[in-house]
Amino acid sequence: MAAIAGVDAFDLRFPTSRELDGSDAMNPDPDYSAAYVVLRTDDGPDGHGFAFTIGRGNDVCVAAIRAYAPLVVGLDLDQVIGDLGGFARRLVHDSQLRWLGPETGAVHMAAGAIINAAFDLAARTAGRPLWAYLAELSPEQLVDLVDWRYLTDALTPDEALDLLRRAEPGRAERAALLREHGYPAYATSPGWLGYSDDKMVRLAREAVADGFDLIKLKVGADLADDVRRMRLAREAVGPGVRIAVDANQRWDVDDAVRWMRELAPFDPYWIEEPTAPDDVLGHAAIRRAIAPIRVATGEHMANRVIAKQLLRSGALDVIQLDACRVGGVPENLAILLLAAKYRVPVCPHAGGVGLCELVQHLAMFDYLAVSGSTEGRAVEYVDHLHEHFTDPVRVRGGRYLAPEAPGFSAELRPETFERYGYPHGTAWSPAATGGSTG
Amino acid sequence: MAAIAGVDAFDLRFPTSRELDGSDAMNPDPDYSAAYVVLRTDDGPDGHGFAFTIGRGNDVCVAAIRAYAPLVVGLDLDQVIGDLGGFARRLVHDSQLRWLGPETGAVHMAAGAIINAAFDLAARTAGRPLWAYLAELSPEQLVDLVDWRYLTDALTPDEALDLLRRAEPGRAERAALLREHGYPAYATSPGWLGYSDDKMVRLAREAVADGFDLIKLKVGADLADDVRRMRLAREAVGPGVRIAVDANQRWDVDDAVRWMRELAPFDPYWIEEPTAPDDVLGHAAIRRAIAPIRVATGEHMANRVIAKQLLRSGALDVIQLDACRVGGVPENLAILLLAAKYRVPVCPHAGGVGLCELVQHLAMFDYLAVSGSTEGRAVEYVDHLHEHFTDPVRVRGGRYLAPEAPGFSAELRPETFERYGYPHGTAWSPAATGGSTG
Repeated sequence: MAAIAGVDAFDLRFPTSRELDGSDAMNPDPDYSAAYVVLRTDDGPDGHGFAFTIGRGNDVCVAAIRAYAPLVVGLDLDQVIGDLGGFARRLVHDSQLRWLGPETGAVHMAAGAIINAAFDLAARTAGRPLWAYLAELSPEQLVDLVDWRYLTDALTPDEALDLLRRAEPGRAERAALLREHGYPAYATSPGWLGYSDDKMVRLAREAVADGFDLIKLKVGADLADDVRRMRLAREAVGPGVRIAVDANQRWDVDDAVRWMRELAPFDPYWIEEPTAPDDVLGHAAIRRAIAPIRVATGEHMANRVIAKQLLRSGALDVIQLDACRVGGVPENLAILLLAAKYRVPVCPHAGGVGLCELVQHLAMFDYLAVSGSTEGRAVEYVDHLHEHFTDPVRVRGGRYLAPEAPGFSAELRPETFERYGYPHGTAWSPAATGGSTG
Repeated sequence: MAAIAGVDAFDLRFPTSRELDGSDAMNPDPDYSAAYVVLRTDDGPDGHGFAFTIGRGNDVCVAAIRAYAPLVVGLDLDQVIGDLGGFARRLVHDSQLRWLGPETGAVHMAAGAIINAAFDLAARTAGRPLWAYLAELSPEQLVDLVDWRYLTDALTPDEALDLLRRAEPGRAERAALLREHGYPAYATSPGWLGYSDDKMVRLAREAVADGFDLIKLKVGADLADDVRRMRLAREAVGPGVRIAVDANQRWDVDDAVRWMRELAPFDPYWIEEPTAPDDVLGHAAIRRAIAPIRVATGEHMANRVIAKQLLRSGALDVIQLDACRVGGVPENLAILLLAAKYRVPVCPHAGGVGLCELVQHLAMFDYLAVSGSTEGRAVEYVDHLHEHFTDPVRVRGGRYLAPEAPGFSAELRPETFERYGYPHGTAWSPAATGGSTG
């Protein structure tokens, strides 16, 4: 009888702060990192997953993965794959570990990494890329994946079944379109706050030339700088390209309103993370004040309870789920279902390390089996660190091509472990860091 | 120049699950634990603090304390004590560690433990118990402690100054009353879900005989059991004693309403944690449906952003801050100020290990310097594990007596470290655990 033989956790960090890649108003010097987990089996494929962090604290997520390991090691593989929803709930509901959340912070990110690794394992075992594996489940099987606790005042299992059944017609046609044309992407690479004006303008033009019709700029540190950069970007790309802006939680409610009124002449498409990610009422107030500029948030949304409130209270125009922040595929499925019910488009957060690789699967699955639409939707794209993955994203003409390899595209290359293991990898040696290990 | 010479972290666990002390509908077998931190100085007093957990995952909080240590070791002691608000903000705003929240979960609990230890150190250095140390700060000094980010749409620094100035008259008289009569307490010891009916009834009667006029029962696992236990408790204590009930987040919104309608005939004083702690809209819906039964929550409220929304949206009748869950004294000061503005009484969460010791200081400070009132207020009291502290709480006639020793009452006795250190303490030896270490 095959079992999960081990849960191996790794602290991997990339010294991205040296180039200010990823710099924004709240995160001036991120070192993109993965608290990486392998569900090891004795025969058959392993399962890969990770939590994404930006440096310090990656060790805390690794410790949290190890705290869950005793709940996972020795489980029968067929039972895990046969009841992935039950597997996820056993981790998330563990009463002692739950106390550190509930369902938020390091333990929830760790549970999400392990749960995503189990989905990777299941899809590999089935020989299917995750988006196809999920889209081939029945509505009943999908509903069984979800943890319904705390959801039923907004969405019941029966409503979810109806939603999923309504999305069944046309699925094969959509799958064919997806395989031919891919899924829309948008480009954040031009807009990091640490880049010079010249570099930003050059990268914005390149993104448009590459086929993107939505780009994003980081804002929020200095209003005059933001007005200048937004004007330069608008002049560079012209009126036909959408420009979103992202404050990364930097503002209070009044700051957000004041700032966006100054940026409004340059036609921002959305303002992302204007304030604290769990401030449902704050986002709603900002949205009322700055309409028709869209409000977007979600990358730091801890769980489905925050998503539920953001969606049902009309606090946002766009929801941006993250593949690694919440409790894995089942909780993101709950968020996709809620978004479909409240008719809010999902534009997933990506970038970092591996977030593009993961979240493309969820967006493609949503297109096939939940919302059935790509209208108003796009997955964030940043051209960093893909070379470390065995099945890296392929983006062509501003669209993600559908991955075809089995699994969740989460696996890192063996040589990456040696170079970027923290603190002993060669990238963190005194010679590489100028004497400091960060 | 005196400095913080070290940040020492300890994993301490008490095997409370062996007696079902602390058992409730969500937490059937807690092992009360402390991720304990000592800010070590070379001369002068050390600072003590801790995060409270219920067993597994305590190591994750210890790892998070260690992740913050490099930000703290070597800091000049006078500068830390002279700007405790700035010290707290430097920890909470650390951009890389913040990514694991923001301001929630293991990293926020760890930051809170360290920040509380710094307040312990400051109060010891001043030779004052923390409640008195805080109450002797000026309104301006108190306002400087608070992290105002994300608060100003609900409460501005100027409004807070006004609130604090209005509470200045009568402070000396209130301090004298506090020293003479103590601060109201309520009793949870009778109501753990794992106790037999007989034990619950006996303990409820004892609590009333000891002077408590508010007791609390755990509910939420089985409706018929809860109706029976509530009836027995009401018969035991009579109509004049208030009985609160606590579901520990067990329900969806509709469950909470249905359940409380069944319990209503026995006159429950409040329903505590009816659903997910960050479900602001859910609590508001429950409150509307079950009025006049009060809704209480807050022990798992991650931060001031959730508190702000709960208070301003009318989602609750009672707010229950926790000394260890949020970012230490400064964030709890923000919550006390918000509660005063929205005129919601604060009944702090306690119990566990050391929560009573800490939170009594915050309630007494609130009485002297913020709300100026004890009306409708009481601090939870559970008679467990106080013997481990060097300055344990003293509860007489249903009231907490004001602590007089300098500091935050957070220090554990040296022999406790040896016995309850995890996993090598004697309480966790194979002989003590029957062969398992939990």
